Amino acid sequence: MSFSITILGSSSAKPTVDRHPSAQIVNVHEQHYLVDAGEGVQQQLIRAGINPLKIREVFISHLHGDHVFGLFPLLSTLGLYGRKTTLRIHAPAPFGELLDVHLRYFDRELPYPVEWSETDTTKHALLMENRTLEVWSIPLRHRVPCAGFLFREKRPPLNVEKYQIERYGLSIAQITAAKRGEDVRLDTGEVIPNAELTYRPYEPRSYAYLSDTNFSARAANLCRGVDLMYHEATYAAAERRAAKERGHSTTLDAAKAALKADAGRLVIGHYSSRYKDEQVLVDEARTIFPETYAAEERTTFTIEKQR
Amino acid sequence: MSFSITILGSSSAKPTVDRHPSAQIVNVHEQHYLVDAGEGVQQQLIRAGINPLKIREVFISHLHGDHVFGLFPLLSTLGLYGRKTTLRIHAPAPFGELLDVHLRYFDRELPYPVEWSETDTTKHALLMENRTLEVWSIPLRHRVPCAGFLFREKRPPLNVEKYQIERYGLSIAQITAAKRGEDVRLDTGEVIPNAELTYRPYEPRSYAYLSDTNFSARAANLCRGVDLMYHEATYAAAERRAAKERGHSTTLDAAKAALKADAGRLVIGHYSSRYKDEQVLVDEARTIFPETYAAEERTTFTIEKQR
Repeated sequence: MSFSITILGSSSAKPTVDRHPSAQIVNVHEQHYLVDAGEGVQQQLIRAGINPLKIREVFISHLHGDHVFGLFPLLSTLGLYGRKTTLRIHAPAPFGELLDVHLRYFDRELPYPVEWSETDTTKHALLMENRTLEVWSIPLRHRVPCAGFLFREKRPPLNVEKYQIERYGLSIAQITAAKRGEDVRLDTGEVIPNAELTYRPYEPRSYAYLSDTNFSARAANLCRGVDLMYHEATYAAAERRAAKERGHSTTLDAAKAALKADAGRLVIGHYSSRYKDEQVLVDEARTIFPETYAAEERTTFTIEKQR
Repeated sequence: MSFSITILGSSSAKPTVDRHPSAQIVNVHEQHYLVDAGEGVQQQLIRAGINPLKIREVFISHLHGDHVFGLFPLLSTLGLYGRKTTLRIHAPAPFGELLDVHLRYFDRELPYPVEWSETDTTKHALLMENRTLEVWSIPLRHRVPCAGFLFREKRPPLNVEKYQIERYGLSIAQITAAKRGEDVRLDTGEVIPNAELTYRPYEPRSYAYLSDTNFSARAANLCRGVDLMYHEATYAAAERRAAKERGHSTTLDAAKAALKADAGRLVIGHYSSRYKDEQVLVDEARTIFPETYAAEERTTFTIEKQR
């Protein structure tokens, strides 16, 4: 029951020799979700050993080029690969217009459907859910409409303790009832409380992607208790003014957000091209939030299950 | 008086781990021209140590994604860099519509003008000229309107042989007349023929970019005598049918074009992703055209001056 995040792009808008613009793969239970798609993401996927065909849905935080330019080449390539399943893209308006233009000029005959699902970046809303996962929008504070994403595992179903099954000789019907959360009546008439029989195999895990944004207390609160938070830290603390003006965060902003959210770990990225060594940024953030790590391209952060 | 070609992308449409889609910088007399712009070209420029601001004009052969997706991110970045000079882009219709969409959604306030100059891909026409260079379109045979480019140095002005100036004690006026191509009358009344006094410092050099295309005798003829020809060789000879159907060339098609054009050297590129080692393609082409070389990314082919 995987829950991991693979970083594909860690730079901000200005190109650099060895980093790529924002993109990540969030893998929840072997379902792959692409979060943002800077230029070159398709090649980064291949280099990271991830088959682009595995992408189920795409989540775009905002319509700045460094978060979206790589999406259109990827759509074409999925066509070349013969994809058949629908690709849904969550993005703010007016993404639909960009998509229409791309399809009209470059991909008139895509072998698979592409659907745009409009994100209202002002709302904390459920964007997607399946049996085991919910994805919510997190309104952010940037120069254009922008929302991050909260990936939240649903609470796993109850399991029945094996030794209790043995001990009481529970029938299939009794096991099923326990899994539904019910107390179990034995043949003797004794009632065993559900809590003695069952457990959740793991605590639901969650991941928040917060980029691009100024510091936002609201966003941090919406991610309360998140296991892993990715927060842009375009600038070092000294560039506080530039961050504020450009709708970005410093290392300390990111750290404060993680602290406020009581996050398990913080991963910072979206580095300005002026910083050759991201360690200085990580060190700054750690002065407020010790469990800070650098987003490094083609590395994966795993959120382990906890009982 | 430089004349060189730096390869930035050597792959065809399907992405690979270590190649990028088509793009090249043609440097003539320190003026830089970008020819085609596959995804990732801006990063390739930086890796090759070429300042993107130096690009004077852009030439796009056709509107397939692997030749143009990298252009729009580059336009944005040139804006971030504060470019002021006009960027002219030569491309077939309907490129203007794509450009309008990009500017409207991503770059409303570019600090420099971008101009589209429409290429008629059915004609051999002069697209650009300055004091020392002409660029001509070369109609190609592909699945969509497509034209390659012929970069042709103008004949350099006549120089006067220094030893002749000494020998005859030529005045400034006489030197100027000789440079104009005139015979020179000495004070003695003797007339010295221009051909004895003058020489061209070098033979005009030329470079042809032919991609994407089936074999085209017309295109090869239009490039007669070219010093260096770049010709797509998407496929090995065994894939002749696929090449024909897809509007591409095999190694042997490229070699035949170079032979027909009496080219100095042939550079092949636009390799299908199925070929891990381009040497096999080069070897095939050399069976017909021995002076064949592989386009390797971030390497430069120089055309030396010849007297």
